[in-house]
Formats: sequence, C-alpha cells, structure tokens
Amino acid sequence: MNAPDVHPAGGHSDGGLWSIDNLPYGVASTGDGSTQVVTRLGDDVIRLATLAASDGVRKWARTFDHSSLNPFIGQGRSSWSAARRWLRTILQDDARRALVAAATTPLADVTLHLPVRIADYVDFYASEQHATNVGSIFRPDGAALTPNWKHLPIGYHGRSGTVVVSGTDVVRPVGQRKGREDPAPVFGPSVRLDIEAEVGFVVGGETEVGTRVSVDEAAEHLFGVALFNDWSARDIQAWEYVPLGPFLGKSFASTLSAWITPMEALQEAKTALPAQDPQPLEYLRGDDLFGLDLQLEVRLNDTVVSRPPYKAMYWSPAQMLAHLTVNGAGLRDGDLFASGTVSGDARDQRGSLLELSWSGKEPVELSDGTTRSFLEDGDTVTITATAPAAGGRRLALGEVSGRILPSR
Amino acid sequence: MNAPDVHPAGGHSDGGLWSIDNLPYGVASTGDGSTQVVTRLGDDVIRLATLAASDGVRKWARTFDHSSLNPFIGQGRSSWSAARRWLRTILQDDARRALVAAATTPLADVTLHLPVRIADYVDFYASEQHATNVGSIFRPDGAALTPNWKHLPIGYHGRSGTVVVSGTDVVRPVGQRKGREDPAPVFGPSVRLDIEAEVGFVVGGETEVGTRVSVDEAAEHLFGVALFNDWSARDIQAWEYVPLGPFLGKSFASTLSAWITPMEALQEAKTALPAQDPQPLEYLRGDDLFGLDLQLEVRLNDTVVSRPPYKAMYWSPAQMLAHLTVNGAGLRDGDLFASGTVSGDARDQRGSLLELSWSGKEPVELSDGTTRSFLEDGDTVTITATAPAAGGRRLALGEVSGRILPSR
Repeated sequence: MNAPDVHPAGGHSDGGLWSIDNLPYGVASTGDGSTQVVTRLGDDVIRLATLAASDGVRKWARTFDHSSLNPFIGQGRSSWSAARRWLRTILQDDARRALVAAATTPLADVTLHLPVRIADYVDFYASEQHATNVGSIFRPDGAALTPNWKHLPIGYHGRSGTVVVSGTDVVRPVGQRKGREDPAPVFGPSVRLDIEAEVGFVVGGETEVGTRVSVDEAAEHLFGVALFNDWSARDIQAWEYVPLGPFLGKSFASTLSAWITPMEALQEAKTALPAQDPQPLEYLRGDDLFGLDLQLEVRLNDTVVSRPPYKAMYWSPAQMLAHLTVNGAGLRDGDLFASGTVSGDARDQRGSLLELSWSGKEPVELSDGTTRSFLEDGDTVTITATAPAAGGRRLALGEVSGRILPSR
Repeated sequence: MNAPDVHPAGGHSDGGLWSIDNLPYGVASTGDGSTQVVTRLGDDVIRLATLAASDGVRKWARTFDHSSLNPFIGQGRSSWSAARRWLRTILQDDARRALVAAATTPLADVTLHLPVRIADYVDFYASEQHATNVGSIFRPDGAALTPNWKHLPIGYHGRSGTVVVSGTDVVRPVGQRKGREDPAPVFGPSVRLDIEAEVGFVVGGETEVGTRVSVDEAAEHLFGVALFNDWSARDIQAWEYVPLGPFLGKSFASTLSAWITPMEALQEAKTALPAQDPQPLEYLRGDDLFGLDLQLEVRLNDTVVSRPPYKAMYWSPAQMLAHLTVNGAGLRDGDLFASGTVSGDARDQRGSLLELSWSGKEPVELSDGTTRSFLEDGDTVTITATAPAAGGRRLALGEVSGRILPSR
C-alpha cells in the first residue's frame, strides 16, 4: 500500500482530501470476486472485511462482509466509533502494514455500489435561499416563503427504489406537462430537466413506531453524510404537484454518492446555525444544534456553475430528524433524509439550474461557449464537496455524478 | 380439517366468504414455531410451506417458507397462477385431505404478520367524490378539483416503514397545527385524527430504473389487493402540506390488512370504469382498463358509519401503475400503491370522517348515543369488504382494523 500523501492528486481524488481524517464507508466489488464494505485512503480502496479477518477481529469481519452498510449502520453509535478507532489504529500501525497492503486495491480497479439499502427516503427543503428563490419563481404573486416555512422543516417522502449510486446514467424522464399557454396537457420528454445539489444524511438505529427521537437524541441516529443529486423535471413537477406534492417530477432517479462520510469525521465541520427567528417550538430547540461547514461545488460538463455553502442552511440535521419522528414515525436502518437544494446568498451559490438561470431568463454560460437553462442530453453533472478537518486540513465528501441519456 | 362451509359464520369470519374462491395469502406464526406463508379457508389457516413440503412440491415449499410474501411476489404472474392452481387442486382432492389437515391451524391460534416487506409505498387520490369533497372543505373559495385531477392520477410517496398490519394499535400523533385564529402554531396531540378507507395494490416483478410499465403490461405486475387505512391527522396535515404535500399528517402509521387477495380471485369483481372525460393522454388509455366492484364497510366501534363503493373510483389500478412508472421509475417486489380514500356519491358512502362529518359541522352518530367528528382515544376502526365471486357467490377481503391509543 502506498501512503495516501504520495498519491498524485488527479481528478477528484486528491490524496490529501482522503487521508486518515476522512475514512468514508462504501461498498465495492474488487478483483477477488467479493463485494464488501470498504473505505478509501488516497486513491486506494481498503476491503474492511478482509482486513478485519486477517487482523483477527471477528466482529468487524462479520459486520463488513455484506453488500450494504446496513448491518453496520444497525449496530449503533458505539459500534460506529469503535470501528473507526480500530481502523485508524491499524492504518497507523507499522507492524500491520502488510495486512493493510493485502486488503488494498487501487480505486480505479473496483466497482462501487449503492452503499446503503435505503429504507425510507425523505427530502427536506431546508435552505431559506432556495425556498425563497423557488417561491419567487413559481408563485410570483404571493409571499416567497409559505407561512409554515420558518416553523418547521418542510419535507416529503421520495422514492427509495430509484436512488442510484453516483456514476449511474440518468434517462431523461417523460411525462405530462402543461404550460400556461397550453390548452391541454402535452406528453413527452421533460424539457426542463434540472439538478438539486443536496446533502444526504444516513440514519441508523431502529426505533419503534409510535415513539420519537428528540433533537438531543439525534446524534445517536446520524450515521453519516453523503452528497445527493435530486434530479428534478420542473415541467412535470409544476403540473402535478398541487395539492399532494412532487411525485413523477422527482421519482425517476436520485443519485447518492458512493461514499458515506461518518459524522465522526465531520466534528471540525460543525458550525453554528443561522439565527432562527421566530424561535421554533420546544421540540425543535436544543443546546447542541449545529450546521455543517461543507463547501459544495457543482460542475456541469467542464464548467463549475455553482459553489453552494451548506453552512447557510436554516435547519439543523438534528431538527430535521426530530421533526421527521415527532409524530411517532419509526426509523429503520438505512433511512435517508436529504437537506433539499443547498443555495447560498450569491447567484453563483445556487444549487439548481432553475435558480441559476432564473427559470430560463438568465441562461448559464459554459466554458465551451454554449449556454444552459436546463440539462441537455449528454450533459454530465458532478457535485463535490470538502469540509474542514483537524489541524487546518480538509477532507472530501464522495462525489455524486450522473450523465443524462435521451428519453426512451 | 373442517370443510369451510361447515364453519359457523361468526364475527367477520363468515366461512362462505373465505371459500376456495378466495384463498388470500398472508404470513403467520403458528404453534409449531414456524413463520411462513399461509392461506385462509373458513376459520382455518393453512400453512403453505408445510403443505407443499408434505405434497412433495419443492418449489412451493421453498417459496412459502419465508416471513414475507416477497419471494413469491417476485416470481411473477405465471408462478402466481401456478401456485393458485396447485392450491385449489389439493384443497379439492379427497386423497390428499390428510396432508391438508396436517397443515391446518385454527385462525384463532395463529399470529398474523405484515404480509409484505414493503418497498416503496405510493398513495393515490383516485376518487372523484373524495377529491371533490376535500377540495370543497379545504379550498372553499376555489374549484373543488385541481386542474390536473382528470388528466392524471394524482399521487405521492408515503412512509413504507410505518405501514403496520391490521390489529396494531395506533398511537395518536403529536405535532404542529395552526388554526386560522391561532397567531402562531401550537404543539400537541392531533385533535382531528381521521381515517381513510382505501384499497391497496401489491406489486411484483422488478423493472429497471429508466423503463416503464404500460397500461397493458400492468396485469403482469398486479399481484393482489388489500384493504388499507391511511390514518390522517388533518390538523397536522393542513398546516404542513403546502407546498410539498402531506408528510407528518400521514407518516405516523398506515394499516394494511393481513390478507392479500390475489388478482386472480377478483376476476368476477372486474367492472367498467366510470366515464373518463376528458379522454386521458394515450399512455393512460387501454382496451382492458377495469374498475373493481368491491363493497367496503367502515365500522367505528360498533357502528357502521359508511359503505364506500370501490367501483365509483375514477382511475383504474392499471392507469395508476402506468402513471407511476411513466417517468422511468422502476418497480420492486413489494411495492404498494393505495387508491386514496374511497368515497361514493351518497353521504353514507364517504370514506373519511372529514367528509362524513363535513369537517366537524355534521358529527356522526354512533349506536351508543355518542357522536364523532374525528377519532377519540380508545376508538376502534375496522374496514371490511366483499367482492363478487364465481356462481353468484361473494368473497371477503382481509379486514383492516386499528385502535387509537392516547399520545405519549
């Protein structure tokens, strides 16, 4: 195994961003025919079931010998910490260097899979800037924010079965749309296909239906963080979404990064939330509410079109989880909730093309001289992010990338 | 084993309604310690893995030796038919009477479980009468039906993880609500807890993300029918649902019947849809669109409060499935979609208390002299249904029942 810091920093695999500070979890098939839980160090992947077996740690050998993170996620926070301690120790132990090397494969030689068997998926709407932009575009005659927006983290359930792993092509959806000038709805490929740059939170630790998780208990259930692209067909969505919310405009595909960064790796990224005014109801208050200082970057083909700052988000992940369960909704291992589009104050911090092009009025210029209001077939969108780590260093979150294929 | 027609018809277990015409599937734990797929005949449960093993049919013995119907559902329509043929044959074969008897347990002695490991759950809104009633109540100043309603089956994703089996107590949800007179939202137990009497459709036969299922292909994926109660906290829902749809007002619990009636048992229940005007778009048209003549009955404690007729539903299950997938959304074994509240034209055919009490203006009278606008703690709601079977006979769908516990 090469030490991570000697890897050339090519593409998105900057070795310094994938150091021992990071150690995200994924699931990979490697040349040896196994599919198991892995971590990433520099441009290498380390097979954790293999490593644990050779290290004689039966518990982790069993836990990581699966094609999803769910068994690990289900063990709860103390196991998450213990596994990370074991992993950091062995990776820094010269005496076990050969064991690590034997479990290591170059990243380029593995196939990464959807890391989590997703139970329920909820999408929130936690950026005030995004909600204000969308409200202004879709409902120009009303208040931009709905009256409930600052009282609760608005969310809805999405389709778990169409969450795909980064790198999966996305087929342009077809469906109904109806413009203001159309006398009747028309059918065809979406002509307003968009992205939503989001952050996803993977949840573990089942709870009984009828019970709830408080803001202060949320940390026991927040396993890790992923990047997420909630592809959105704005034309389909606009026609269908009143009164029961988004459905086919979203459910054709949502892309999750292949790497889940443990919450424990993001301690240095914790930051204060923006001021919440009015003060939310008691069940959304807590002493330890936090935001996350994740710096996202959105590339459309070869052009960086946006750099959304996650720290601008209004609601804490802990508040989202407490709200999601306040009515007694139980949690299952592998539940996923996403933040909603991350948008900052500046134009070049908006996390969707709808906002970046202001619904097509101000197309985005790409480096090849073309412009985009929405996605064209063949376009590739890649979202990356970094976060502060110990000692002034930074770490990367797993990228989320997808290319648009023509509708079938 | 007693022949079903000699069973006393007590309670909801009328032997004639659970004849060989019916043969629904469920999952039960029986005295022998096993949990397996079962069917029901009269007041008896027949263990299908046990029966198949003793009959020497390895395929069914393996298929039914599971704690959910998913492996069976995943085998597709030809297997569904073959299993039913095998079952109907053996149950009518005097020579194998002893095998059947050895696999039989009285219904009263088994524990029924959630029969399906639910993948994604979608709730539609397919009753014109219900949508019109709700629109009139919630948006009295606008058109009762939204402009999209007759062009597409409106639906949204619900929470799979809180679908519980009939008989499970339901804890009254707490959450935010804000009446028109309230200056700010208040927090507490829902004061407008309601039911929605629905029919659920269980789907099998996975499809790839990016492909769709046409109206004409829907029969290949429609495994069976269940009764469903989409409990709804109207006060929580009213405050949260703009703009992204229902969330906590629904996600605390939804109850599925323990028995899934195969589509094949409902051939005699197929009926013409109500006229669809305007004609829907091409992808929602077909030669074989059908409604189902299911006669529901809703009991609140000891009083029958409604008899909703499913045949009044505007959209066919085939149209709902084709719409759900037209954007490329893949299907997984165990997907569930529900019809939305079933309401007929008459007042005593409405499938929710919101409609029955007209949002509290006309409380429903119960046989004990009390009245209800919404549910009180301790109330039990039971939804049953029957359908036409061969030879002028009828069959029962599995009941869906639940009792309200006080909020925690």
